[in-house]
Formats: sequence, C-alpha cells, structure tokens
Amino acid sequence: MAKRVGSVIELQARPVILGQAAVGGKFEKEGPLGGSLTEVFEDDMLGEKSWEMAETHLQGAVIQHAIKAAGRRPEEIDLHFGGDLLNQCTATAFALRGLQFPYSGIYSACASFAQGLALAALAVESGGTELASACASSHFCAAEKQFRFPLNAGVQPPPTAQRTATAAGAAVLGKGGGENPAITKIIFGRVVDYGVENANEMGAAMAPAALDTLKRFLEDTQTRPGDFDLILTGDLGEIGTRLLHELARKELGCDLQGIHRDGGLLLYNIREQDAGVGGSGIGCSAAVVCADILPKLRQGQLKRVLFIGTGALLSAISPLQGETIPAIAHGVLLEG
Amino acid sequence: MAKRVGSVIELQARPVILGQAAVGGKFEKEGPLGGSLTEVFEDDMLGEKSWEMAETHLQGAVIQHAIKAAGRRPEEIDLHFGGDLLNQCTATAFALRGLQFPYSGIYSACASFAQGLALAALAVESGGTELASACASSHFCAAEKQFRFPLNAGVQPPPTAQRTATAAGAAVLGKGGGENPAITKIIFGRVVDYGVENANEMGAAMAPAALDTLKRFLEDTQTRPGDFDLILTGDLGEIGTRLLHELARKELGCDLQGIHRDGGLLLYNIREQDAGVGGSGIGCSAAVVCADILPKLRQGQLKRVLFIGTGALLSAISPLQGETIPAIAHGVLLEG
Repeated sequence: MAKRVGSVIELQARPVILGQAAVGGKFEKEGPLGGSLTEVFEDDMLGEKSWEMAETHLQGAVIQHAIKAAGRRPEEIDLHFGGDLLNQCTATAFALRGLQFPYSGIYSACASFAQGLALAALAVESGGTELASACASSHFCAAEKQFRFPLNAGVQPPPTAQRTATAAGAAVLGKGGGENPAITKIIFGRVVDYGVENANEMGAAMAPAALDTLKRFLEDTQTRPGDFDLILTGDLGEIGTRLLHELARKELGCDLQGIHRDGGLLLYNIREQDAGVGGSGIGCSAAVVCADILPKLRQGQLKRVLFIGTGALLSAISPLQGETIPAIAHGVLLEG
Repeated sequence: MAKRVGSVIELQARPVILGQAAVGGKFEKEGPLGGSLTEVFEDDMLGEKSWEMAETHLQGAVIQHAIKAAGRRPEEIDLHFGGDLLNQCTATAFALRGLQFPYSGIYSACASFAQGLALAALAVESGGTELASACASSHFCAAEKQFRFPLNAGVQPPPTAQRTATAAGAAVLGKGGGENPAITKIIFGRVVDYGVENANEMGAAMAPAALDTLKRFLEDTQTRPGDFDLILTGDLGEIGTRLLHELARKELGCDLQGIHRDGGLLLYNIREQDAGVGGSGIGCSAAVVCADILPKLRQGQLKRVLFIGTGALLSAISPLQGETIPAIAHGVLLEG
C-alpha cells in the first residue's frame, strides 16, 4: 500500500522501469543527446501524409522500442498512459489503433510524461496492473501549425520562444529489482497561474508551477535540493530556468544552481542550433528522461533524480480570448 | 491490493462515492433528468465572455457542489481527475485555477468520466490518496464551434448527429461504507476502429468500442448481462444503441434489450426536444451518472450497474485528413 505524506505519495511496492526508449527527428539528432536516441527519423514527415500522422508514427515507434527494451510483448501491457499536444490527443489515440492494450489518455501539456510515469507507477503499486507503460510525444511542425503559424508562412519566432521537440519517449513499468531504476515517490501538481499573458513566454508561465511542486515535495519529504543528484525540470528553457532559480532563492531560500538542470536545455545546443531559449513540447522531457536520465540511473552514474515535468495549460485560442496561462508540474522521484 | 483478472481490475479496498453532483443548461433542464440536476444555468453563457469560459464555469460549479455533497472541503481533495472536449482540455485547467488541489488531466473524449471514476477509484485503492475526485464537462455551443460550425452560421445538423450536452458531473471518492455506492471493478478500454469516416456518425464509431469492453468484462468476470440491474453506456444515441445490440447478438449471443440503457437517450426526450439521435459530449454521461444512477444506487433502487463510458477519439481536422474515427470505452462496476 502506498502512503500519503502531505502531497507526496510514497510507493512501497517499488515499481521499476523495466525498459525505455526515445526517438527524435534530424534536429534532435544534431543535439547533445542525438547519439542516445533509440531511433532517429531524418524525414520530418516520417513517410506520412500529414504532420499529425508523422507524430502518430513517432509514438507507435517509441512504444514498440520501449516494450522491446523491457523484454516484453505489446499484448502483455495491462495499462498504457499516453498523451500529446495535438487537439484531442490524436497522435496518441491513432498510434494505439494498432496496439491492442488498455489505454488511459492523459493531458497536462508538457508535464504529461511525468504524469504518465506517476500514474503508471501508481497503477503498478495498486496491484491492479502488472505492466504499465507511459508515452508522450510532440512534433515541431504539428505544434507550430496548431499553436502558432504553419511553417510555410515563414514567421520569425520571438526571442523568448522555445522550440517544440520532434521527439517521443516511452517507458514500461513493472515490479522487479535488478538494476532497474525505481519510482519511489510521486507528487501531482496543482494549477498555478501567475498571470503570464504571452504565449511565447512559456518558461515564465511554468516556472511558478515547478516551484510549487518542488516546494511541496521538499517540505513533505523533509529534504533539501542537495539530497538529490539532480533536480530535472521538463522544459523551462533559459528564461524559465532563471526565474525558477530566482523564485527558489526567494521562497525556499536555496540555490538550485549546480543541482538543477532543465530538459529544454539538455536536448539542444541552443546557440549552435538556433533553438530559441531551449526545447519544449511534451516529447522534450520524455526524450531527455528516456535517452539520458534513465540510462544513467541504470548505469549508476546517477542515483537519485527528482524529475519535475512542467506544462503550460493554454490552447491556441485561450490567450486570444484574454486568458492568462495556467501551468502545472508533476514530479517523480527516480532512484537507481 | 487490487487484483487483476484478465482485463478487469478488482478493487479490494471498496472505494465509495461519498458525494456527487450534476449541473446543466436550460435544454438539459427540459429533459427527463432536469429535476435531478443540482444546479441549472438558464443562461448558456453563464455570465462569461466566451463559450469556453462558460464551460469552465460549469466545471467549477459542479466540482464545488460534489465536494459539498460529500461533506468535505476542496483542500481535502488529494487528487482530482478531470477532462473536457475543448482543445488542450482548457475548461478543466481553467476551472482548477481557483481550486488548489493536485490535478491529473485525462482525455478519452466522452469516455472521460468513466475513466476519471476508474482512476480515482484506483488511486484510493492504492492507499496513495484518501480523497480523489473525478469531473467531466461539455458545452453545446463550445463543441459546435470547435468541432462543427459556429451556431451563428445556422448550419442544419445531419439526421445522424447527436446533441452535445451543456452539462457536467463530478464525484468525490474515498473509503467508507454506509449507503455510499462502491466501485468494485474497473476496466480500461482499448482503441477500436471499425473504419467509420463520418464525424456525424459518432454512435456507429463508438458502438464497437462499447462491445469490446463489455465483452472483455463479461468474459473476465464470468458474468452475463442479466447479472446486472443495468448496463449503461455513455452516449451511443439511437443509432449506436441499435448497433451495439446487433453486435452483442452476433458476437456475444445475448440480447441487451431490457438490461441496457444509453446515457444519450436518458438525458433528453429526443423527439420532443429535437435532440437528434440523442445526447453526447463528455458531460452527458457524467450528468446522467451523477443525477440519476448514483442517487438510485444510494437509495437502493439499483444495486449493480455496469457503466461503460464511450468516446470517439477524433479531432476537428482528423476526418478532413482522411482518418477514420477510433473509439474507446472504459467501464466501472457500481454497486449499491
């Protein structure tokens, strides 16, 4: 039985990640984690007819890779948690047409992979599922088209914009020990809205949500940032990272420099690649966790990572209707 | 600890529904369940500036009502599962800005309320949450605008179209006995696609998903339709209901007539109200379950209800891109 301590759910059954995979496009291949991707798709269309179906293809591929890495077969998955940024999460739904396992659709924007890991771990903990999986994806071209402008319009991104990753990550969870990293604690985010209005200021909108979840986690587990090898946020980018550090100094009285990294800054060499203030998109943190963090936990290079996925809960029309941008951050403690 | 039997998760800790509420608009008030709604909003705008914010208002109201009905306070909710049909589920996210509890966003179209109940029950079962809640909403005008045509265009709906409910339902789950209905078994759906292409044929697209979940549930629990007081599907409407009965005769060799009702046909007097072939939308089944089924379970008029929420996993653009309509159905067994 799991135990609730404040906002934190402590898992007792030690759900572990049996296998994971990350895939990306050509641009992601050129980044620092390019060599760690399970598969790279050089063609942004992935041989499909639309950007949306290209993202569907990404998801199908990464799920299959993760299941294979776990040494299992698709029909063994008891429950899958998946999400994406497309309206009505169609990349996920369409990818699962060919995979006949039970599916629970999730959405918390770019916090969806952390949310999926947390729910999959909770499902395994409950005893109700033996194998649970989580997947999340995004596609640069599909996201630009849906949220901003079609690429063909050639619109210049503003200097505060982040680059949506063409990437996906997936993980298969179950019980069992060995060298598999475990999820030992989870925390679900609250909706936080500091009144940011500019849809090109995602990092600023998400930083307060990351702080809220981090603060509650540290308080409820009576830990300090130094108790972790790494605190990884999803995709705050350069601006959001700076704001999180500032908020942490003010509100927690602690310095995150050195212990904190952001997925949006790990996926790309942002200056050389001209990737704005960093990567973003649901697939960004999913790919960073699956390509970089989980392998390092498995190899013992990292022992204790607090992964806090961050999501901006806007739609393409909500800022146009004058709404500010609510954000959320979900956390999982990964232990090697 | 929950127990998995095939696709069915049997809950041992007896999570119960401590309180629930349903709200609707003027059109829903005029239907058979109008008198059972906790609150009715005569103005479709609910005093807001947009249809989207009107739906947000619906959610905020119904969540507050459900928490009150459970005799609890918002800050006691450990984990909330919510979803809606708006792009990026903004009705849910925006409603939760004012409610400071942990939130896990879900999406499986009109199957979202069943999914939310199942996940909330699993969360309580795991021991990780004491109180978990589920909410789902839809708004006729917001859905027409997003998926079809703005109402002002005055476009005639085709004869196979269903009417999206302006409605929401919410339930608060916890442990405890008394007269509270329990969720004893849950089953998550698989993505089923029979190749339906017409976005105005939702019932036809969803019926095979309902059958798939019903079939697996009956097989894995070794039950027959007659073992339940009621099998309630989400919102198949008249056409989907007819198709489900036909599929059940062919594939299960059983007659669902008499034992099966559909939420889409319970919410409206479809002929008198001119509600197409029945109600639909995430709020439809949520309102029917919360306004009608749960009270009857509480009063002993019903003892054993298998609720199967059904969802069509398309977006506004996916049929235009030539994609068929995948569907999903999640089930929960409600016992009085």
